[in-house]
Amino acid sequence: MAVAVEFASSPAEVLRVGPGFSLASVDPKSTPGYAGAKADGRALLEAQDARLAELQEKLFAEGKFGSGKRLLLILQAMDTAGKGGIVSHVVGAMDPQGVQLTAFKAPTDEEKSHDFLWRIEKQTPAAGMVGVFDRSHYEDVLIHRVHAWADAKELERRYAAINDFEARLAEQGTTIVKVMLNISKDEQKKRLIARLDDPSKHWKYSRGDLAERAYWDDYMDAYSTAFEKTSTDIAPWHVVPANKKWYARIAVQQLLLDALKGLKLDWPKADFDVAAERALVVNS
Amino acid sequence: MAVAVEFASSPAEVLRVGPGFSLASVDPKSTPGYAGAKADGRALLEAQDARLAELQEKLFAEGKFGSGKRLLLILQAMDTAGKGGIVSHVVGAMDPQGVQLTAFKAPTDEEKSHDFLWRIEKQTPAAGMVGVFDRSHYEDVLIHRVHAWADAKELERRYAAINDFEARLAEQGTTIVKVMLNISKDEQKKRLIARLDDPSKHWKYSRGDLAERAYWDDYMDAYSTAFEKTSTDIAPWHVVPANKKWYARIAVQQLLLDALKGLKLDWPKADFDVAAERALVVNS
Repeated sequence: MAVAVEFASSPAEVLRVGPGFSLASVDPKSTPGYAGAKADGRALLEAQDARLAELQEKLFAEGKFGSGKRLLLILQAMDTAGKGGIVSHVVGAMDPQGVQLTAFKAPTDEEKSHDFLWRIEKQTPAAGMVGVFDRSHYEDVLIHRVHAWADAKELERRYAAINDFEARLAEQGTTIVKVMLNISKDEQKKRLIARLDDPSKHWKYSRGDLAERAYWDDYMDAYSTAFEKTSTDIAPWHVVPANKKWYARIAVQQLLLDALKGLKLDWPKADFDVAAERALVVNS
Repeated sequence: MAVAVEFASSPAEVLRVGPGFSLASVDPKSTPGYAGAKADGRALLEAQDARLAELQEKLFAEGKFGSGKRLLLILQAMDTAGKGGIVSHVVGAMDPQGVQLTAFKAPTDEEKSHDFLWRIEKQTPAAGMVGVFDRSHYEDVLIHRVHAWADAKELERRYAAINDFEARLAEQGTTIVKVMLNISKDEQKKRLIARLDDPSKHWKYSRGDLAERAYWDDYMDAYSTAFEKTSTDIAPWHVVPANKKWYARIAVQQLLLDALKGLKLDWPKADFDVAAERALVVNS
């Protein structure tokens, strides 16, 4: 097998939302940091599956031995941008036993009767786990802002509450990877039409998607403001160009790999006498 | 690619625990219903991944459109028998979004203060989902019987309660697949030694495993009684010979495939006017 083309620059750097970031100047068709073509990207994705699975297993193993390390991937995007594909093709390479996936829907009546972070807190990953949020607490500053379900003062309260919340998770050992999959409005149209043209995809089509599409520019404003308010040092945002699905997948895979590598994971040392235990097993 | 060797007889039939079943007469090294060798089995596992994923997606899709169908895989086994491998290599081929995995550990104080089915009920799969229990309510008639944590009368109550509980799940649309992975005592010894000889596996070794191993025959009795009491028409047990990991994996994969095929799944019909919706999208 040929050696896969790797990233020339780390997505953790080139996709990071820092000072002066402008969402409008990101080209959703671009492939920052990656010079390869689609076939290269697909080969890289597959080639790195085993590495991702191994790091995740080490994280899980450390968790069993008292480490507080854990990872949380937060995925936000406009409809059809490919969150589901990230979950099945990137997250799916990891052992299900070490992954805690939560798809946040419209809140229930009970959830609405609590603070917006109440339902989020319950789904934060346990030690050793990789948590994945398909949508998240950011809906409370995105769709809520777009439809003015929260006023300016309440939105400010939420941005601050989110930063405090994420800082607490980080203090407790959580590495947070925040990803916005960025497609263009034209690309969304193509994908909605593709869904409608394929009867095996009709179930994925929601008439509500079209209603939200009408607020595209308002969503982009809401995302920009959320980035400005909540792209912190401990939990920076990454905007991943997503018109090319293969690129979005390797970019998120690489963000996870880099985050896990940064944790300096290793197999836990046995907390028992291995030779003595072996003798007991042999004689059992 | 060569055509994979398939099962000559359905595991759902040849592995099913019916009248007159004897656990002692199952050879853990055997490969019932399958004439292929290891390489064939591995090729079959891979070849059927996509089929399993497609059926699971249809189940999920139907669930979104009001179907009550769902699947529950219950895995029980002695330590090292390969439950984890089934989860990563068989269940792992399905989209994480459609899988609800629960690994039941020793119950917490709160769980102990309730009936044994209290914590189980909470983890039953939602409509459209594939639930996977790594250990289950059967621990309450296995380890509890072996260590006499429950007396004969209480065990009888539990067998009956389990049958009522599973019947209710079935009535509500749940297809239940119960699997006991059957390894030999010698094979367990080999696997425990292999864990101790590989530092990257030390974290998987628990000294408690050796303590339970001393009760091997009592466990086999407890399994035999559980099969007798709870292998019902709506939720039969399957004893899967598991000394050969590759066989156990294709056998469980096939049990899942057959269960899903039995549900006569199909892509849901659109509940909206596709052409009208398409025109709206094109003009959006």
